[in-house]
Amino acid sequence: APVSVNGFVCKNPMEVNADDFFKAANLDKPRVTNKVGSNVTLINVMQIAGLNTLGISIARIDYAPLGQNPPHTHPRATEILTVLEGTLYVGFVTSNQPAPNRNKLLSKVLNKGDVFVFPVGLIHFQFNPNPHQPAVAIAALSSQNPGAITIANAVFGSDPPISDDVLAKAFQVEKNTIDYLQAQFWENNHN
Amino acid sequence: APVSVNGFVCKNPMEVNADDFFKAANLDKPRVTNKVGSNVTLINVMQIAGLNTLGISIARIDYAPLGQNPPHTHPRATEILTVLEGTLYVGFVTSNQPAPNRNKLLSKVLNKGDVFVFPVGLIHFQFNPNPHQPAVAIAALSSQNPGAITIANAVFGSDPPISDDVLAKAFQVEKNTIDYLQAQFWENNHN
Amino acid sequence: APVSVNGFVCKNPMEVNADDFFKAANLDKPRVTNKVGSNVTLINVMQIAGLNTLGISIARIDYAPLGQNPPHTHPRATEILTVLEGTLYVGFVTSNQPAPNRNKLLSKVLNKGDVFVFPVGLIHFQFNPNPHQPAVAIAALSSQNPGAITIANAVFGSDPPISDDVLAKAFQVEKNTIDYLQAQFWENNHN
Amino acid sequence: APVSVNGFVCKNPMEVNADDFFKAANLDKPRVTNKVGSNVTLINVMQIAGLNTLGISIARIDYAPLGQNPPHTHPRATEILTVLEGTLYVGFVTSNQPAPNRNKLLSKVLNKGDVFVFPVGLIHFQFNPNPHQPAVAIAALSSQNPGAITIANAVFGSDPPISDDVLAKAFQVEKNTIDYLQAQFWENNHN
Amino acid sequence: APVSVNGFVCKNPMEVNADDFFKAANLDKPRVTNKVGSNVTLINVMQIAGLNTLGISIARIDYAPLGQNPPHTHPRATEILTVLEGTLYVGFVTSNQPAPNRNKLLSKVLNKGDVFVFPVGLIHFQFNPNPHQPAVAIAALSSQNPGAITIANAVFGSDPPISDDVLAKAFQVEKNTIDYLQAQFWENNHN
Amino acid sequence: APVSVNGFVCKNPMEVNADDFFKAANLDKPRVTNKVGSNVTLINVMQIAGLNTLGISIARIDYAPLGQNPPHTHPRATEILTVLEGTLYVGFVTSNQPAPNRNKLLSKVLNKGDVFVFPVGLIHFQFNPNPHQPAVAIAALSSQNPGAITIANAVFGSDPPISDDVLAKAFQVEKNTIDYLQAQFWENNHN
Repeated sequence: APVSVNGFVCKNPMEVNADDFFKAANLDKPRVTNKVGSNVTLINVMQIAGLNTLGISIARIDYAPLGQNPPHTHPRATEILTVLEGTLYVGFVTSNQPAPNRNKLLSKVLNKGDVFVFPVGLIHFQFNPNPHQPAVAIAALSSQNPGAITIANAVFGSDPPISDDVLAKAFQVEKNTIDYLQAQFWENNHN
Repeated sequence: APVSVNGFVCKNPMEVNADDFFKAANLDKPRVTNKVGSNVTLINVMQIAGLNTLGISIARIDYAPLGQNPPHTHPRATEILTVLEGTLYVGFVTSNQPAPNRNKLLSKVLNKGDVFVFPVGLIHFQFNPNPHQPAVAIAALSSQNPGAITIANAVFGSDPPISDDVLAKAFQVEKNTIDYLQAQFWENNHN
Repeated sequence: APVSVNGFVCKNPMEVNADDFFKAANLDKPRVTNKVGSNVTLINVMQIAGLNTLGISIARIDYAPLGQNPPHTHPRATEILTVLEGTLYVGFVTSNQPAPNRNKLLSKVLNKGDVFVFPVGLIHFQFNPNPHQPAVAIAALSSQNPGAITIANAVFGSDPPISDDVLAKAFQVEKNTIDYLQAQFWENNHN
Repeated sequence: APVSVNGFVCKNPMEVNADDFFKAANLDKPRVTNKVGSNVTLINVMQIAGLNTLGISIARIDYAPLGQNPPHTHPRATEILTVLEGTLYVGFVTSNQPAPNRNKLLSKVLNKGDVFVFPVGLIHFQFNPNPHQPAVAIAALSSQNPGAITIANAVFGSDPPISDDVLAKAFQVEKNTIDYLQAQFWENNHN
Repeated sequence: APVSVNGFVCKNPMEVNADDFFKAANLDKPRVTNKVGSNVTLINVMQIAGLNTLGISIARIDYAPLGQNPPHTHPRATEILTVLEGTLYVGFVTSNQPAPNRNKLLSKVLNKGDVFVFPVGLIHFQFNPNPHQPAVAIAALSSQNPGAITIANAVFGSDPPISDDVLAKAFQVEKNTIDYLQAQFWENNHN
Repeated sequence: APVSVNGFVCKNPMEVNADDFFKAANLDKPRVTNKVGSNVTLINVMQIAGLNTLGISIARIDYAPLGQNPPHTHPRATEILTVLEGTLYVGFVTSNQPAPNRNKLLSKVLNKGDVFVFPVGLIHFQFNPNPHQPAVAIAALSSQNPGAITIANAVFGSDPPISDDVLAKAFQVEKNTIDYLQAQFWENNHN
């Protein structure tokens, strides 16, 4: 029976080789973006088995003109990002606090070569404000399996749906607005 | 100069006493609930200095009839909850996954004495489906400073607001719907 | 072969459901208390498999009139407790220190709604001083498998017994006193 | 104002020198043993400031003939021990478990050069069974500040005393036995 | 007096702003390389104060034609790297093991878009085998303060020097070879 | 199928006994030293299965007259050492820093009973300067599986060899010097 760590089967140390720490990931190649205009190509422990327990992963993110990586969280990782191509408007929202500090948006316009940090678990986004040019970023995350929760998808696109009684009051809208939202197609741009 | 750990000033071990580990928190008393019908009374390191570094906190949650603790996350803690009074419909949504596993809602109706777990960082809620009776729960969190992010408040009530260009596309609605939402008053039920 | 984490078999994420995070624990129901007048009903990873790795558990503790949860430690967890019914005299003893700080008892009388913290690994107890009324508390622990060591049971009730040469000198009593103690029945009130 | 980590003041990295990682501890020299016949000389972060955050400490333990390091726990460390001189009867007691596994004593007679492990938080002891010869051990602990709780001292020698109502029932003896125990002098053999 | 965490002074949460999570790092710009033909531009907690405790940092690495990032370790971090421009021959050496597994070199030639992992604490290097073209990589490290130890510099360029008695035998060369090496200028390519 | 933690198969808690925490390691006995004049006898999780997850191990180190434990690192542990017999010249080199703090050697001559600390991941050595007498030390490490990387062996004795193009430039010597070094026999003194 194979031994495992963190739920992944371990390889005998006598048998590991360089391929266990390598992925021909083509991170230099543009990706087709999705409905909201982005595509996250994450290289984590699912792609490189040798990452298990090592606490890091890396991603390329493509943004179409006016595309975005919509508001989301990583439940198990902080993210650090640098812009390779184009411009990004990025931000995160602090957790609940008494006024005047409640849910502050900390945002910035990033140019090529700039670096920004999204602390673990906070809601954040990146948006390409340029209507003509794509943007590209490299991001790293402090977990070999950071997870991602796209807010709109998880709230309005869950399977089965969250009761519209709950969501209507939580979002201060009519139930038919919730029903409309729940009827949309919510496409993940990353797993 | 005082020494500190985790950003909190430490007390000289020679001078600690029982009050540093105690809070007359009145967790047995009903609380007035807010606009969405709930009130979270959290006892964390801000209330009990001796909790610093110890990785736990406790809360009483009051739910009005049809009240809810709306979809939220704790960026630094798992939550375990038991119902003291009434009935709760509770759930959390898993992180992004390929179909058929994408954003699954795991929900349950809890009666008095039942226990449920909300894993760290996942979006979860509790709803009191009873139109006539309040409900009460005790919850514990695996951090002395778990944080809380009420999703609707952070997304639509941040200060300053997130650009409606971003939110309209992320939530698949018109910008005037976003503007309407951003004009509402978003009241936290916990910090 | 199933994969496992922390010695517990893991479920395929594709197959988890709400029952993996739920226990109909009847924590609202009084329990029969034992010889020292208490009963700890702990909901940990043995009862809720989904708690694995999440670092938290919860318990109901029943105290008979004049009953106690006798001096004990949790080797892997801090405990936070709130009183639901009755009154408790609680305390913990600090670790060895030079005088005047040696083995200080930090104690408190807790009423309904009060909160108290017992730091990881320290010897602590709860006692119901009321000769007529039971007491009830909810406690949370910062581990999914906190462990419990009832001091008297571990020292005098171990199997096989610790040598009475050791215990007589350690406790400054005659060996026949140790022999008498080791002949008693030591009943755990929690596992 | 100096910066600090874990409650200890930090030195500017530009100013550290070898003395910050060194202690002329005389661990080769026999120590005078106390009333129970032992003496623990612990080198931890209080003696070597450079140990802060590094998670380890070391000790020499002297045992008089028939002396013992009485039942105690380390709330924040596992201990590994090797015998330099003499013979030791050592053991630890497992935490509460249902029968037939309740509070098992795992013990061993150690000769020179043998190694034994005492897992974090468990009650353990070492006893020198030789009536004529002392014994010496080197022990290492998995914390720069492991703490030590001598069971008898903490239970019967705390300041102020634990109520004899509590202890009489917990230890299944008369209150005057408790009162007698609490009147003894409880001398720590380590801090 | 300011509070601090991990030795860095903390900012009042009420006063943080986006600049605390941002660095105009110019990671898109080529750097002048050093004597061994490389330059590591690391963005860590020294450049972005908001990274403190968050466990991640990011770097751009420039390689001249035939340049290298010479054998080094990160004492507190795993590294994940992707190639932006050019080609790299990379590798790490496993720790001591009995034959046939002793100090295995796991190496790979990386092209643009490939990803490779260097596990925490292991000796690793990157070499640009192209005599005409530079190479560029982005690397991320699993610590906000990963540290770097260039092997040759630490062994032969320390201040003061390590005794040549030690190094001659350790490296199986004559002492005058060590003396020659210690007389060279050892230039760090990263801190 | 057996369950495992950290890649080691776990024993059923019902079946553990004292032998799972014990090793007749003969740490009191002198060892034959190797070519560089030392021998490290490490007792880790491979020798004592019960050490798994407990974060500590212990070693005896023998040094021949003029023998050394050559420059090496432990990728996953800090080491604390005390001298049992003889004298040792010991030291470690700090990580890369800007001058005047670059790669500082912190060294000390240790006599019997002295204690020294080698922080996690830093290059360190011990040397017995006495041409006539052996030396002996006990060391403890803050991991049940600390790993060891002997610098010269990993750099010049890896299998397959690191390219001499890389090593010649990194060490500022001719390629034939590297070839000579790579042709030597590099004998580990510990695993």
